[in-house]
Order: sequence, then structure tokens, then C-alpha cells
Amino acid sequence: MATVRQPANPEADLRVKAVFDVIRATRKTDFVNNLWRSLAFDPALLESTWSEVKRVMATPSHVDPLTKEMIYIAVSVANACSYCVHSHTSAARAKGMTEAQHAELLAIVALAAKTNQLATGLQVPLDPVFDANASS
Amino acid sequence: MATVRQPANPEADLRVKAVFDVIRATRKTDFVNNLWRSLAFDPALLESTWSEVKRVMATPSHVDPLTKEMIYIAVSVANACSYCVHSHTSAARAKGMTEAQHAELLAIVALAAKTNQLATGLQVPLDPVFDANASS
Amino acid sequence: MATVRQPANPEADLRVKAVFDVIRATRKTDFVNNLWRSLAFDPALLESTWSEVKRVMATPSHVDPLTKEMIYIAVSVANACSYCVHSHTSAARAKGMTEAQHAELLAIVALAAKTNQLATGLQVPLDPVFDANASS
Amino acid sequence: MATVRQPANPEADLRVKAVFDVIRATRKTDFVNNLWRSLAFDPALLESTWSEVKRVMATPSHVDPLTKEMIYIAVSVANACSYCVHSHTSAARAKGMTEAQHAELLAIVALAAKTNQLATGLQVPLDPVFDANASS
Amino acid sequence: MATVRQPANPEADLRVKAVFDVIRATRKTDFVNNLWRSLAFDPALLESTWSEVKRVMATPSHVDPLTKEMIYIAVSVANACSYCVHSHTSAARAKGMTEAQHAELLAIVALAAKTNQLATGLQVPLDPVFDANASS
Amino acid sequence: MATVRQPANPEADLRVKAVFDVIRATRKTDFVNNLWRSLAFDPALLESTWSEVKRVMATPSHVDPLTKEMIYIAVSVANACSYCVHSHTSAARAKGMTEAQHAELLAIVALAAKTNQLATGLQVPLDPVFDANASS
Repeated sequence: MATVRQPANPEADLRVKAVFDVIRATRKTDFVNNLWRSLAFDPALLESTWSEVKRVMATPSHVDPLTKEMIYIAVSVANACSYCVHSHTSAARAKGMTEAQHAELLAIVALAAKTNQLATGLQVPLDPVFDANASS
Repeated sequence: MATVRQPANPEADLRVKAVFDVIRATRKTDFVNNLWRSLAFDPALLESTWSEVKRVMATPSHVDPLTKEMIYIAVSVANACSYCVHSHTSAARAKGMTEAQHAELLAIVALAAKTNQLATGLQVPLDPVFDANASS
Repeated sequence: MATVRQPANPEADLRVKAVFDVIRATRKTDFVNNLWRSLAFDPALLESTWSEVKRVMATPSHVDPLTKEMIYIAVSVANACSYCVHSHTSAARAKGMTEAQHAELLAIVALAAKTNQLATGLQVPLDPVFDANASS
Repeated sequence: MATVRQPANPEADLRVKAVFDVIRATRKTDFVNNLWRSLAFDPALLESTWSEVKRVMATPSHVDPLTKEMIYIAVSVANACSYCVHSHTSAARAKGMTEAQHAELLAIVALAAKTNQLATGLQVPLDPVFDANASS
Repeated sequence: MATVRQPANPEADLRVKAVFDVIRATRKTDFVNNLWRSLAFDPALLESTWSEVKRVMATPSHVDPLTKEMIYIAVSVANACSYCVHSHTSAARAKGMTEAQHAELLAIVALAAKTNQLATGLQVPLDPVFDANASS
Repeated sequence: MATVRQPANPEADLRVKAVFDVIRATRKTDFVNNLWRSLAFDPALLESTWSEVKRVMATPSHVDPLTKEMIYIAVSVANACSYCVHSHTSAARAKGMTEAQHAELLAIVALAAKTNQLATGLQVPLDPVFDANASS
């Protein structure tokens, strides 16, 4: 059940086809998952979203690809996005995440959420040493 | 301003002193930050919290220490925990996070939150291929 | 699957029937959706909830009805309430939301979540000019 | 720093004065905290909010007053509302919450947030026995 | 659909069997729910999670068992954890939560979330009297 | 207190200066608020963020500018982003939001958060009529 109707034949729209072609080439697979098929209801939103995902996640940079996916999963869990947890866990596995790393990722996310509650519940005062402008 | 009073002389309680000693030894610094000083109002909660932080974050494992801190920051940002964002950004810097990596981390967290909203707003149906029980 | 049992014949309870009658009259339809059927397990909670929804959402005011629904969707997405995203997207469509407006709404919610993370991750200091008490 | 200007003399508005009088009588104190002073910028919003707080929190019912406050704190921590954590921790103390109970409350909130992440990260399937419609 | 495969015969692992045995003994039932069956993919994570749940939730303390469950539900609702809302509502019922108490719990959680938004939207300034260090 | 150091003279970097110039031209003011000054620590992140804000928020479209700001505030409140609540409330006022509209916005956000909790707490089953694929 969804809030927008996925176009039956999305690639009849040439803008959609162009994005799907890049998704397939970037990921080296014919499979285009439902997030993109749903976003196809608005080609401009599809284009801008994919373009950012490709730039941030699929461009060589200072953070390695698996770490990026693990950070993505962490945020998706914290935001309770079921679809995103599934899709990025799948992506992390494809990039080599082991079961042991997956268990550790969940342990870190769980611990962070736990100490987040403690710090917020206690309203812990900031330590001056944390100030970026002070740490020269 | 805080919701509990930090003990004026927390290490008068020997259980608190024991935890603070391990914190200082683990981190190789005399500094004990306010989260632990606030938790000292309940030594049992202090002990169990520190014990988990040490086990998950400060034990050699399958995820490297800097990646752990970046995941911790990601969750703390998603949960809007100001104290935690400050303390773990500081910790990540101490473990070598560069400005470029920091900027990338923020870009990934921001992008993940963005696509979390899109997937939730569209109520995108799960792709069967994501099922861990199917991917054999 | 639900955490409370929907009453099999909710309108046997006259307080429930009275609320359902007003829902049908306000919305000009015989359909009463599951939120209200579930709330019927506690007539007082049903009455107070519907009464507030009617007052805030269905009374002519300074914000037009479609804008109200779009704000409601935005909050429901941010809170990851699947049921609410579905029900209010449906309501917004009934009040004239076009596909283009729906796509824009999602783009705004996604962008806001993104910059929320950036501001929280950076712990951006407040600009004094934002103070309502200063802007005289 | 605030987003609305608190009226300098809020009780010059008789609707505001009427609400403040009931707040003082209900709480047996002359002190009216800033939430109500800020809400005074819109007397109708002030009235409806206070009326619900009084009905839910200050009317004898099936949940005892201290438990109510502890639940309120739990939600406020989860929602990262600094003001609310402060005001309801203060209220819970006034209703007898001990330091030991406060520490336990924080431990439960922290544990719940932790297992919330685990269940969401694992996308644990629902057990059929949890269905309220099945448990007859 | 899940992100990890539940072991087909989890108790073949003796660490898993030991935890499941304690779960069954603590709860006086043969039923072990899916959270634990999913966590069995990593015995160390299973052990540490159950050990904390048992210590915080199933040890006699200063907060009664039903209140603990109600607080747990409140956090799980705020964090939109569907599985947790189901499992802890079921647990609260087993500990005696009546329909009237359930309705009140939901009313308090809903009200708290509502006033959390108002306080955050208004950016209400903290009242100095809330400071734990001031209230001597 | 912040997690990154704002460059002392940000416009010495020509990419930063170019963005600040467009911000000033778009908003017809010399004032550049702290979010952009903090983002200046990473010119690429500054450019991509501003570019999206300008495209979504400052381009004539199917949603009027004030409604856009009100939706932005709603999300920022739900995500507990103090800085964003301040900056977008200020922006909404500059675009004509009256006190009455502000009060209504807060009432809608508060009500939505409230019914979000009720629907999540009750785990209300989806009504088939909400399915976008069914509503032909």
C-alpha cells in the first residue's frame, strides 16, 4: 500500500528512463528498487534525489563506501524508516558488511540511542572543552 | 541548568571513583566529562552505562574506532541530542576525523534523513529482494 | 494486527454513535476510518480526540484547509506514522492537492529534515536577530 | 530566546487571567511557569492546552499522579524537549519521585530506546500472539 | 520480512540456549518471542541485551512492574517502534493493565507529545526554578 | 558553542563569497545567518545545501512561499531543531505570517503529533481505501 501510484511504464518518460539508466550503470545491475519507481511520479524530484545520492554515496571520497552505508543505516534506524533500513542493510551487505559488523553496528546504534536518552533526561551541561572555537 | 545535581565531590563514593579511574585510564587523560559527573548521582547507573560504553566503543573489534564514533554522531544528530553531538564530535576529532570527513559525515546524515522522509512520505512498498530470508 | 480490539458493533455505545454521526456529517460520507473505530474502545478518548480534530481542522480559520492537511502530513512523515501519512495524504487529495503540490510537499519535508540535521550536527549558534523579544 | 514575545502583562487579558487563576489554584502555588506565559500570546490556545493538561494530569483516575509524571518525562526525553524534561522532572519531584526512582526511570527510558533501535534495525517480524484480536 | 535471518535451530548454539532458558524461567512460559529469536544471530548481542532487560525490568526495585511496562510503551510509541509497541502492550496486559489504564496511558503520551511540540515551537525559556542545583 | 569553527573571514574563499552574494541578492538583505556561516567550513557542502534551499524554497511554484515556510517550521519542530525553529519562524514572519496563523500552525503541529501517538499506540490497521493504487 502506497500514497502515490507507481507509473505502470515509468521509462516511457524519457527523464525517468535517463535516471534509471544511470542507476543501472552505477550499480551494475538491471534491478531498480521501489524507491526510485515511486519517485518516478515526479521526474524532477526523482532527478534531484538520485543526483544527490550518486554524488554523496557513489563518488570516491574521504569516507569508504561501506562506512557510508553503515552511517546511512544508523540514521534510518533512528528515524524508524522501515524501507530505508531494509534497502541500506541490503546495500551494506553487497559492499561486504559481515554478520559481525552488522551486529556491532546495531550495538552502537542501540548504545548511542541509550546514552542520548540519558544525556537528554539529565540535561547534562556542555563541557567548555567541546567548543570547536576553544580547541585551538 | 540540569535535572539532577552533580555530586560536589563524586569520588568520595568509592564506586564512582572506581569508574572514573577506569575512564581516565581508558582515555589516557585526567578529564572526566559532565555526562559521567551527572550519572554519578546513581552509582549503579554510572557503572552499567560506562561498562557498556567501554565494551562497545573501546574494545578492539570488527569496526574501527573512528567509524564507531561517526556512527555514534549520526545517531546523536538524528536524536537531536546536543550534548552527545558535542561530546562525540570531540571524540571523533581526537581519533583523527578530518574536516573533510566531518563534512561528508554531515552530508550523509542529511541525505539519509532526506530520503527517510521521502520513503516514509511515499510509503514505498518493500522490494522482496531485501528479505534476508530470501537472499540465499 | 492491532494493540486494541475494535468493538464489533461500536455504535451500540451511544457516545460512540454520537461521535460517528458527527464525523459522517462533517465529512459528508458514510465512511468512518479505522482510527476512530479503534479509538471507540474508550469513548471518552474518542470524544476528546475527535472534538479537537474538528475544532482545529474543520473550522474556518486563518489557515486554509489544504494547507492544514499539508502541515499535518509533514508532521506525520517526520514522526514516521504510517497510518497518519496514509490517512492525511488521502484527505489532502480530497481537498484538492495536486500531484505537483504533493511532490513539492515531499521535497520541502525532505529538505527541512536535511537542514535540521546540518544545523544540529553543526550546533549552529542562534542569531540574535531571531529573538522575538528583540524584533520590535 | 523565544519565537513569540511573552505578553508583558498577560493577565490584563481576562481569558488569560482566568486560566492562570485555575493553574494557581490547581497547583496551590503563585508560580506560573513560562510555558503558560508564552502560550498567553494566544488565549484560545492557552485555554485548550491547559484544559487538556488539567483533565488528563490533574483529575483522579486509574493511573496515579506520580506514574503520570514519569510517563510524561519519558515521552519528553524521547522527543528531546529540553523545556518539558525540566518542567516535568520538577513536577515529578514535587509529587514524591525519589532519586532512586528517577535513576530507574532514566534506565528504563534508555533501555527502551536501545531495544527500539534493535527491533527496528532487525525489522523483527510481529509475533501473532501479540494481536489484540487474537488474544481472546 | 527481516534484515537478518533467524537461525533455524537457534538453541543448537549453547549460548543462545542458555539465554532462552532464562527467558522461559523468568517469564514462566515456553514462548520466546521474535526479538530474541532474531537477536540469536549474534549470541553476544543476545546475551548483553537480555541481561540488561532482566536487570532493569524483572528485578524488584523502586518502580512497580506495571509502571515499568507503561513507561516502556510510552518510549516505544514516541520512537514509532511497531514491534515494541505490540510486545510491551502485550506484556503490560499480562501484568494487569486494564483497558481504562491503557486508554489513559495513550492519552498521556498523546498530550505529552502535543505539549512537547508547543514548547519546542515556542522555544519557551527555562524557568530558573527548574534547576536541580537551585532547588536546595 | 558549536562543533565546527566558523571561518573568521569566510568570503576570502571565492566559492563562499559567491554563495553569500546569491543569498544576499535572493533575500534582499545584507544579513547572512549563522547556518551559512557555519557551513562555510566546507564550501562544497555550503554550495549544494544553498542550491537546494533556493530551488525548493525561493522558486515560484505550486505552493505559495508562506505555506512552504509553515511546512518547514512544522518539520523543524517535530525534529526538535531549535536553530531551525527560530530561523524559519523568523522567515515566516517576514513573509507575512500573522500571530493568529502562528498559533494555528502550532495547534496543528501539536494535534498531529498527538494523533500520531494515538495511531502508533493503537497500531491502527490501514483502511484499504487509502491505497493510491486503489483510488482510481
